[in-house]
Amino acid sequence: MNHLGRLFSVTSFGESHGAAVGCVIDGCPAGLTVNLDEIQYHVDRRKTGQHSFSSSRKESDKVQVLSGIFEGKTLGSPITLLIENADARSGDYDALQSVFRPGHADWTNQLKYGHRDHRGGGRSSIRITAPMVAAGALAKQLLAQVCSIEYNVFVTQIGGVFTHIIDAESASIEASPLRCPDIETTQAMMREIASCEATGDTLGGRIHCCIKGVPAGWGEPIFNKVHAALGHAMFSINTVKGVSFGEGFDAARQRGSEHNDQFDYQEGKLKTVANKAGGILGGITTGEPIHMDVAFKPISSIQQKQTAAQLDGKFTPLEIGGRHDVCAVPRAVPIVEAYIAIILADFYLHQQLQQR
Amino acid sequence: MNHLGRLFSVTSFGESHGAAVGCVIDGCPAGLTVNLDEIQYHVDRRKTGQHSFSSSRKESDKVQVLSGIFEGKTLGSPITLLIENADARSGDYDALQSVFRPGHADWTNQLKYGHRDHRGGGRSSIRITAPMVAAGALAKQLLAQVCSIEYNVFVTQIGGVFTHIIDAESASIEASPLRCPDIETTQAMMREIASCEATGDTLGGRIHCCIKGVPAGWGEPIFNKVHAALGHAMFSINTVKGVSFGEGFDAARQRGSEHNDQFDYQEGKLKTVANKAGGILGGITTGEPIHMDVAFKPISSIQQKQTAAQLDGKFTPLEIGGRHDVCAVPRAVPIVEAYIAIILADFYLHQQLQQR
Amino acid sequence: MNHLGRLFSVTSFGESHGAAVGCVIDGCPAGLTVNLDEIQYHVDRRKTGQHSFSSSRKESDKVQVLSGIFEGKTLGSPITLLIENADARSGDYDALQSVFRPGHADWTNQLKYGHRDHRGGGRSSIRITAPMVAAGALAKQLLAQVCSIEYNVFVTQIGGVFTHIIDAESASIEASPLRCPDIETTQAMMREIASCEATGDTLGGRIHCCIKGVPAGWGEPIFNKVHAALGHAMFSINTVKGVSFGEGFDAARQRGSEHNDQFDYQEGKLKTVANKAGGILGGITTGEPIHMDVAFKPISSIQQKQTAAQLDGKFTPLEIGGRHDVCAVPRAVPIVEAYIAIILADFYLHQQLQQR
Amino acid sequence: MNHLGRLFSVTSFGESHGAAVGCVIDGCPAGLTVNLDEIQYHVDRRKTGQHSFSSSRKESDKVQVLSGIFEGKTLGSPITLLIENADARSGDYDALQSVFRPGHADWTNQLKYGHRDHRGGGRSSIRITAPMVAAGALAKQLLAQVCSIEYNVFVTQIGGVFTHIIDAESASIEASPLRCPDIETTQAMMREIASCEATGDTLGGRIHCCIKGVPAGWGEPIFNKVHAALGHAMFSINTVKGVSFGEGFDAARQRGSEHNDQFDYQEGKLKTVANKAGGILGGITTGEPIHMDVAFKPISSIQQKQTAAQLDGKFTPLEIGGRHDVCAVPRAVPIVEAYIAIILADFYLHQQLQQR
Repeated sequence: MNHLGRLFSVTSFGESHGAAVGCVIDGCPAGLTVNLDEIQYHVDRRKTGQHSFSSSRKESDKVQVLSGIFEGKTLGSPITLLIENADARSGDYDALQSVFRPGHADWTNQLKYGHRDHRGGGRSSIRITAPMVAAGALAKQLLAQVCSIEYNVFVTQIGGVFTHIIDAESASIEASPLRCPDIETTQAMMREIASCEATGDTLGGRIHCCIKGVPAGWGEPIFNKVHAALGHAMFSINTVKGVSFGEGFDAARQRGSEHNDQFDYQEGKLKTVANKAGGILGGITTGEPIHMDVAFKPISSIQQKQTAAQLDGKFTPLEIGGRHDVCAVPRAVPIVEAYIAIILADFYLHQQLQQR
Repeated sequence: MNHLGRLFSVTSFGESHGAAVGCVIDGCPAGLTVNLDEIQYHVDRRKTGQHSFSSSRKESDKVQVLSGIFEGKTLGSPITLLIENADARSGDYDALQSVFRPGHADWTNQLKYGHRDHRGGGRSSIRITAPMVAAGALAKQLLAQVCSIEYNVFVTQIGGVFTHIIDAESASIEASPLRCPDIETTQAMMREIASCEATGDTLGGRIHCCIKGVPAGWGEPIFNKVHAALGHAMFSINTVKGVSFGEGFDAARQRGSEHNDQFDYQEGKLKTVANKAGGILGGITTGEPIHMDVAFKPISSIQQKQTAAQLDGKFTPLEIGGRHDVCAVPRAVPIVEAYIAIILADFYLHQQLQQR
Repeated sequence: MNHLGRLFSVTSFGESHGAAVGCVIDGCPAGLTVNLDEIQYHVDRRKTGQHSFSSSRKESDKVQVLSGIFEGKTLGSPITLLIENADARSGDYDALQSVFRPGHADWTNQLKYGHRDHRGGGRSSIRITAPMVAAGALAKQLLAQVCSIEYNVFVTQIGGVFTHIIDAESASIEASPLRCPDIETTQAMMREIASCEATGDTLGGRIHCCIKGVPAGWGEPIFNKVHAALGHAMFSINTVKGVSFGEGFDAARQRGSEHNDQFDYQEGKLKTVANKAGGILGGITTGEPIHMDVAFKPISSIQQKQTAAQLDGKFTPLEIGGRHDVCAVPRAVPIVEAYIAIILADFYLHQQLQQR
Repeated sequence: MNHLGRLFSVTSFGESHGAAVGCVIDGCPAGLTVNLDEIQYHVDRRKTGQHSFSSSRKESDKVQVLSGIFEGKTLGSPITLLIENADARSGDYDALQSVFRPGHADWTNQLKYGHRDHRGGGRSSIRITAPMVAAGALAKQLLAQVCSIEYNVFVTQIGGVFTHIIDAESASIEASPLRCPDIETTQAMMREIASCEATGDTLGGRIHCCIKGVPAGWGEPIFNKVHAALGHAMFSINTVKGVSFGEGFDAARQRGSEHNDQFDYQEGKLKTVANKAGGILGGITTGEPIHMDVAFKPISSIQQKQTAAQLDGKFTPLEIGGRHDVCAVPRAVPIVEAYIAIILADFYLHQQLQQR
């Protein structure tokens, strides 16, 4: 089942080296004025080829609208966004037809389906997220009609280099080539990447999200807690291995007296003093900033010699061709933002139906 | 939307201090012989009142079958499991009618719905998980027909006390009053709890899951990755603040050459050397053990004096009556197991439809 | 999958001779004041034992609320309604353990599931509709907050006796023991039933629905057309064999010039002159009365000697014991109403999300 | 919500005069060899321009595969089928920007969404069914792997001309330009159409379906009865006003002793003598032919002078340009087939999960 969201529901389709990747958004209300340039802007932010050390695959990633938008406004019908796979050099992958690469999903896709599109990652390629970023940009535009949300999503760790920053403004994030708002950390990360690239290796990292302006009362008490839905969405992104909220894993060693947020009352509104809950209590938003941490493993396509395997146990030397990132975490920032926006748009619609 | 699972779909209902809590399981195949004693056994494992330091609320938690099982076998129709709320002393909560407790979901439920069942946590109570544990026990019985899964789920941290164990047998887990398979750690945890109880405080903790025997090929490549679904389920459990898989947050600082699992071939089967992926590649199971870590915040009902608040900013002193745990993490073990089983049963059914 | 409705979603559970039948309503907004007497009233309207010629099974059919309603108002959580199976004389059905009755679903349930609850119809019993009627009554209460809908549902045919009435007021419908608003037709129907009863036979019939006051714009253009959803719901009711809207099967022989509704403008509102479309154009309501016709086959439990069969081809004489109606169509009226209300409540919620 | 089917789920997208119409099929198992020519064949059967009296809009309706099929086999991922809107002369519709045509869904779409794509029917156009026919053709190929189903779907009535045939072979159906297997009836229908065309009018009609070879045990006992799902699908097709099964509306006047199917035993299998139930008992297939009747109203685009209306009550003379059919019922045959196949494919997958 290939959709994210229940009421603002985005169905993903496409393989990395097929004709196109795309999505169908079902449930976007009619009458929303759509800014296609802004959608393209976010898709471009996700693109390869932005730094010397990111993949050199050239994709124009031009978003085409096939349905659902008329004279600049949503019709209420499904919105289909398409991105053609222009520069898909399938030939690069011919050698991979019958072998599995370490750390890749080739193997498990084969186990699951009995055959697979061996040209690149197929459905397991990060390319699948491109139209999702477009859908997320639309979700932002929908949300912008009802509230003013800041999606402060930024890189806090690459390999061994990290920062403890938990909030940052969009401008300072985008000013960094690595989407890390701290200049010194960025520079240290650049050095980490350069030294890693020299060895043909890859790096993982971490992203922090501080989402401000989400109205109180969104989310559900049991299975669709805001953090359950966000967690689900984050784990849907390639290479994510961990997700936490608020104090996260540190909460495990805290005492209740320390963790419980004391109440405050400011400007006619109940608040917490320290927002230790990370903007979510019992799965429902408090109206305070949502804090989420996401950990990414290093991408699997390293340029070092490895050993590929076949189902029958034959091993062959592997040198991965193709064009790959050293560290994909900065590129994941717009993806994380997009998935957050889709989940929030879904909760926004859901909340319209919760009170008489 | 109050269900977990899509094909093995469990709809939860009930408030903590209403007439009953229960669930409806839709999608369990017909003809499965049901062991009700085993279901009751798992529900009992979750119950309060097992240790001196856990809540003294007495709940018989007797599981009643209202539908779907006939002459010991599933009918293919919805299975309704009911647990009456026998010892719900609502009076304990009268004082809470208009005030919000720090760290609790009272506040956000009020914000969401405009009113709430103030007697205890309503839907946000951990009591809601009791029938889910019953559903999970049934899921285990379904899975047992097709594969032999070990659910090695155990406590690895309570407050500041922790262990690095990543696997353990069921017997050694259940031998510990805290469901921590290491005796010395258990003893240190007991001391931690005792000292915490003396101050009227509460403790968080951490659970590790090593799930063995899950067949390869389960899960989906994009939005229903095994870890996305498991993550969603875990975050659906009260007080969970973080979830990670395999190397988890540590993966963020690894290099690809270090993280990539090298292949191995044993007993006619392709395997990985070190299972760094934690049993899941690209969202699909490899057939190797799934490793998951779950972090819990301390429960909010501390016995210390706190300050409760009202929407209008009035503050009142709060001393929580009722009967509450010092640390609920050991009781969360059967809940985590149950949710894992429900998700796996769902993927099992799903996988039946993936190949021609 | 045992639910009706997507946003106002009612999951049905229970077998006719198990412990109970019931339903869980997920998606009813919080804060709705619930009139339980009215719910019970509609359930009672459906009950057996109202006429000399209807089934003498005595069911108190007392609706219990297990969850979701607190201090008379919906909580926003799942609402569980339960009706115990008090007078289920399973013994009546012992002889049916291995044989199939003509016209019954015993046979197909066995083919589908490999075994079945042979005591009565199991899930295929009309008894399953009792809690659905309760859910429908709640749906009516939800709808009553936003519009004033008249559910004019009445019997227009029993066996060979029929009337062409297409609208009637509730009072005149309920005044008839057969829920046929025309007195003379009612009397002729009574005679038809009496003569049929004398031969141990059963009768089918027809119900017409004129639903007034549904706001314009509900429904969806493609797969969830109002009539598609209503049709689905009607065919979900036992013994329904045909459903039509507006001019129905007669439309097949009309010409466009005859069928096209001409527009009218009255009281500042666009209308049609003759509402030939039956209140629905392109699947979306016009605001005019919805006209629907529903045809029921005669119920299968006749009191005549028949021949039952086994899977292996053995035949045995069959005389059906138990207690059964001669004609169940009058009792279907509150069921039809309830299903209409559930579908409309679902569309009401859906429509809240269609425009920005 | 724009999908049909739950496990074999087809999401429709596109407006009649937008860039393209298409669908995404989620849930088709991997490894199915796809015959694209056959898919194109069925789409071509649906096309306009086949008879002198059908719409002259020229659509190549070439089906493009954007995803989900690799080297001729399904991948298990979503299958996207696209048909470009090549000959969409939007200019024909400029006059319709602010007025509503009698009998059309312009009006209700405006009421629902607040604005609409006025160029042709938008989502309410029959053109939306083109990719659904492609999806249905794929469903047939999936079903062909497990059983041999005959989709005998044919026209039994056009305007006042009808036949009582309830079964026919595919060859004799396709031999008729009107897809009516009886030659004389076809000729009479041709005359009916010719005389109607002369007056600029349009005609409705009726289709009968005799679906053979569906295995016993498909369908569900309550809300997803086979006929409920088929009914839903049929009512999703433009201009359908009535659907019935087996004896249909005639069942209303039958007695139980007459309607009940007596059992028979032939070739080691239990059967009914007369299949009065129309292949479905209690919503579940018996293995016998499914009989379904579908009634279509005449299409609304007549060539006579009519009066169009605006929301503010202004009326204007209307002469519909564009290119339209006199009678669309013959073209509906492949649509009906396709929708049947989609529903059956869904039930096929569902049934794989019903027994342990």
